[in-house]
Amino acid sequence: MKELTLHLLSGGIDSTVLLYDLLKQGRTVECIGFYYGQKHVRELDFARATCRKLGLRYDVVGLSNVFSGCFLTNDGEGWVVPNRNAVLLNIAVAIAKSRGARTVTFGANRSDRDTFPDCTRTFVEALNYSISCAGIPVVVEAPYLDKFKHLIVALGRGLGVDMGSTWSCYTGSNEPCGECLACQERAKAIKGVS
Amino acid sequence: MKELTLHLLSGGIDSTVLLYDLLKQGRTVECIGFYYGQKHVRELDFARATCRKLGLRYDVVGLSNVFSGCFLTNDGEGWVVPNRNAVLLNIAVAIAKSRGARTVTFGANRSDRDTFPDCTRTFVEALNYSISCAGIPVVVEAPYLDKFKHLIVALGRGLGVDMGSTWSCYTGSNEPCGECLACQERAKAIKGVS
Repeated sequence: MKELTLHLLSGGIDSTVLLYDLLKQGRTVECIGFYYGQKHVRELDFARATCRKLGLRYDVVGLSNVFSGCFLTNDGEGWVVPNRNAVLLNIAVAIAKSRGARTVTFGANRSDRDTFPDCTRTFVEALNYSISCAGIPVVVEAPYLDKFKHLIVALGRGLGVDMGSTWSCYTGSNEPCGECLACQERAKAIKGVS
Repeated sequence: MKELTLHLLSGGIDSTVLLYDLLKQGRTVECIGFYYGQKHVRELDFARATCRKLGLRYDVVGLSNVFSGCFLTNDGEGWVVPNRNAVLLNIAVAIAKSRGARTVTFGANRSDRDTFPDCTRTFVEALNYSISCAGIPVVVEAPYLDKFKHLIVALGRGLGVDMGSTWSCYTGSNEPCGECLACQERAKAIKGVS
């Protein structure tokens, strides 16, 4: 039996390209997403459609009343959801353990690093140390940590990812707003600039 | 304004005594609990009653489909809920950040250490390092890490804690089973043996 990888698929570019990349490597993958009150819950529809197309298991974990005080979940101002990755990744690790998966993957990348402290190698290494101290034989991998987003788009094109099957906008509208941080980063990456 | 402490109150002996202890120290405390599918959800009724009596805020965070494969949540065999404390504490840290609390407290103690790897000082220190790497100005404190449970009972009696207002049994029955790990540890501690 092939070892299982549990992949965090938000429905955005980075996690979708990484999913295709993992499959290209021959890995056996199941995906999870999170509903944590984000306005752009629409991203999960894109993630689910991708998994359906690829024939992969996709589950959504619901978290209510955990994250607040930022633009993504209510009327706060910043883009950063405090401690989000630690919460989502530790939950993924718990689920991975129960399914016998040894690896959890997520799409944090170089373009995230300056905005999100929980998208750095320092954080991922600290998290893995904490997981090992809790006695859990699961490792979190973030293979795109040093890759800028436009390079991920280029990689995705080579892997046959349709960028239209991914969703980035943070605002919760039916069409991308073109103005939020996620829309701006997406536009630059698709144009090929870092 | 006094600095806020966010306390994990499960409704068991350790977290209840620690709550009284924190209040005795003059700290301003709000409490949270978790419903994660535990059979002994009854413990949360005890936690809520304690907070009502003390006039403290108490909120329950719901997590579905996160923990499985152990006796506490289904028909698994072990007592350990894999990665539970990392998940619960990281969620508490996110909530603490949103409320302006600088400290999260929980009642891990010396009697837990040999059974639960996520009740050790090594784990708590690794977790705090990971939280700081995520850029969150919140610290997790577990002041009873070196205290055996029977000493916590003794301390609680001195603080006026009614042990009958706490719940330990893991089985989900209306009366304590007297046989599960939690009942055994409780009985020993109340008798005053480690």
